[in-house]
Amino acid sequence: MDPLETLKNYIRYPSVSTDPAYVEGMQGARDYAAGLLEQLGFAVEIVPTELHPILYAERIRNPDWPHIVLYGHYDVQPADPFERWTSEPFDPQVRDGRLFGRGAADNKGPTIVHMSALSRVLEKYPDLPLNLSYVIEGEEEIGSPSMERFFDSHGERLSQADFLLVSDTGSPNAEQIVVTTAIRGLVDLEIKLKGPKGDLHSGIHGGAVYNPIQALTEICASLHDSDGRVNVPGFYDDVFPIHDWEREELKRYPETDESYRELLGVRGFFPAGGLSPLEAVRFGPTLEFNGIGGGYQGQGSKTVIPSEAFAKITCRLVANQDPAKIQEAVIAAIKARCPDALELDIRRGGSGEPYMVVPPGHPDAPADQPEALVRAFHSVDAAIAKTFGRPPIYLREGGSIPVIADFKNRAGLDSLMVGLFTPLDNLHAPNESFDLSIMDRAIDAFEQVLQDIAGME
Amino acid sequence: MDPLETLKNYIRYPSVSTDPAYVEGMQGARDYAAGLLEQLGFAVEIVPTELHPILYAERIRNPDWPHIVLYGHYDVQPADPFERWTSEPFDPQVRDGRLFGRGAADNKGPTIVHMSALSRVLEKYPDLPLNLSYVIEGEEEIGSPSMERFFDSHGERLSQADFLLVSDTGSPNAEQIVVTTAIRGLVDLEIKLKGPKGDLHSGIHGGAVYNPIQALTEICASLHDSDGRVNVPGFYDDVFPIHDWEREELKRYPETDESYRELLGVRGFFPAGGLSPLEAVRFGPTLEFNGIGGGYQGQGSKTVIPSEAFAKITCRLVANQDPAKIQEAVIAAIKARCPDALELDIRRGGSGEPYMVVPPGHPDAPADQPEALVRAFHSVDAAIAKTFGRPPIYLREGGSIPVIADFKNRAGLDSLMVGLFTPLDNLHAPNESFDLSIMDRAIDAFEQVLQDIAGME
Repeated sequence: MDPLETLKNYIRYPSVSTDPAYVEGMQGARDYAAGLLEQLGFAVEIVPTELHPILYAERIRNPDWPHIVLYGHYDVQPADPFERWTSEPFDPQVRDGRLFGRGAADNKGPTIVHMSALSRVLEKYPDLPLNLSYVIEGEEEIGSPSMERFFDSHGERLSQADFLLVSDTGSPNAEQIVVTTAIRGLVDLEIKLKGPKGDLHSGIHGGAVYNPIQALTEICASLHDSDGRVNVPGFYDDVFPIHDWEREELKRYPETDESYRELLGVRGFFPAGGLSPLEAVRFGPTLEFNGIGGGYQGQGSKTVIPSEAFAKITCRLVANQDPAKIQEAVIAAIKARCPDALELDIRRGGSGEPYMVVPPGHPDAPADQPEALVRAFHSVDAAIAKTFGRPPIYLREGGSIPVIADFKNRAGLDSLMVGLFTPLDNLHAPNESFDLSIMDRAIDAFEQVLQDIAGME
Repeated sequence: MDPLETLKNYIRYPSVSTDPAYVEGMQGARDYAAGLLEQLGFAVEIVPTELHPILYAERIRNPDWPHIVLYGHYDVQPADPFERWTSEPFDPQVRDGRLFGRGAADNKGPTIVHMSALSRVLEKYPDLPLNLSYVIEGEEEIGSPSMERFFDSHGERLSQADFLLVSDTGSPNAEQIVVTTAIRGLVDLEIKLKGPKGDLHSGIHGGAVYNPIQALTEICASLHDSDGRVNVPGFYDDVFPIHDWEREELKRYPETDESYRELLGVRGFFPAGGLSPLEAVRFGPTLEFNGIGGGYQGQGSKTVIPSEAFAKITCRLVANQDPAKIQEAVIAAIKARCPDALELDIRRGGSGEPYMVVPPGHPDAPADQPEALVRAFHSVDAAIAKTFGRPPIYLREGGSIPVIADFKNRAGLDSLMVGLFTPLDNLHAPNESFDLSIMDRAIDAFEQVLQDIAGME
């Protein structure tokens, strides 16, 4: 398996799960990944869902062998705004040691890293004493709404495994890999305010009615206080505190506030709750506006009072926060603050629970962690140290992979999350790319890890 | 001249002044109006400007005759959202006694009313003892930015006239015509907030940076207080009070709060400053959001922190307020409320002064109003009473025609404004139309008025 060519082929399928126009790209990416797993000797099942089928594959030979589940997703974020890409998002191009394309880092590149490592190990040891399952879903970027039913049908089989191996998290740069110990949960919702039945002339009727944009900005502005904290009753009630060992690990993080500020290209930071910027993105919850729209947005001016306006909102939740409870708290706050003169529509999007694992071998770690998981954590530590030149840092991360908590809650599986993308990869933004030097070294590392877990030299 | 067919032809030129894509439609509409005036015996001049030329035409024969200037505009508002039109905006269609099309009421229909009446009078009296000038501009919908230079070159000639005749204001319905005594001024501006240099993943980076949408909504929300009053220091300082006779006239207005609420299709009103809805739209100033945008606006969700967000704002000003002063006050308030972490771009759009005239014959009217203007007001009162069944109401109106104040300030001309469109006409919105029964009766009325001013039987 040629990792680079395989990844390029995979990216060429424009698998945008949120947009029905890309259904063909979704099917192409799914079939391509299925073909790769069949070549590796897996029995592949395409599990139908209400939207995008889940790819499930097994190589299970002996109940006494260690058993790993590998997770990934074949869907990607929308590529717009297209005009800000240097090369086409679905025509992958190598420049400066990076492969550019939508999904290159999130999550097609890491998926190909795992498969390439596995391919090498199976070439050396065709009878490798390791049970393997693959779950590659197509709805990660829209909150994994079909995974619940998948756990209904496949949770029992998955619960036979020892742990989940995931590479859908980040590291600070190509020299310092992070093993992610927690990911944030997610709550997604959209609000729309409706005023007059049609757009109104802002001269003839201006002054009489409540402008929906005005009301929307008032509601949105009310959702944070002047210190940037989320102004929703109960929002912070269940927030998990920061472990001492986590602050120690963060000290090893190779980024300063100033280098981080330059990376993001902002004038200054605005972290809430007395945290530093690097703490806030991993230890604190957020409420973010992902989009807003209403009225005339073209060139020049158009003097209308629009009939409606909307905002797209997501919250990121830290360990111990309950997405359903937070979603209802945010909605209740919005409803309470909506003027009577306007009609409020709320769309409840997907949600995902936060997840946290204490790494084996750490003083706080639970005693009942599976032996294969413990061995895997130790092997990853050594393999990363060897191939990348220094051992990984163990840190929480700000992103969300809602199914990670589901694997824990529905199949009892903890996760070993090895971060392979970096901030330079432009995830969810134009010019997404994957660092090919990380790709090569990570394949070497995972080759070692898979051998170690299987007990091979 | 067949008024309906002429108007249809005029509408077929898509003359959207704010959008460069419509430059051909602008030229077509201009040339068509010029052709009509040439047929009526006018000497036509196309006055170049930096954007859309102004049509100027004269029929001046004797300095002792009364002299009217007629004003109109050949540009129209953008037609989007196109999908909400029942028939195509630039393919005029008659349905239910109305002519549908962008510009049908604002301002192409009223322009054709004036021309049709003049055509009839000139047919009867080819040597009509009346000097006439026409000013038809192409930038009314974008704030008339070229009219200042036009007054530099043509103000002296215009100041020889007695008054301005305008039909670019509204009446409540086809039975009750309003003579408009004041129009509101306008201030146009757009603000853009820039945060990170590119869109950011709201998981990985959420919590560290100030989301531009969040900051934008906070600034926008700060611009009104909880009673709906504009929260900008000095905003209300110069507001002209309401005359007693204006409240008396408004009592004759054939609209109740409830009928007005149903017309607009709102759940309730939100007038500021203790005014009723019908008072607020004509006697009070406003600050309205005409558009807002930022981040992901497509289907579903996209978990980004956008790099920027913008809002389009216009203020309507009443008599005695100074647009330049208000514009700077609003901008100063916005600047003062913009967080340091974000970059603020402000686009200053066009502005227009408010205007007010006290109708001749009224106790408060100035003594030096030109005789032709006094005669015109009386003639309009009688002619409207005859053709529409009841005399007009004299009222201020909420819309803006920035040049009306300029005609007063630069050429000394007061305006006689006879409202020919109604709220049912959907100005600036989809399915704009013009009431053909108003059109017919207004042509009869103006035929009489023009004869009266000229002193004919």
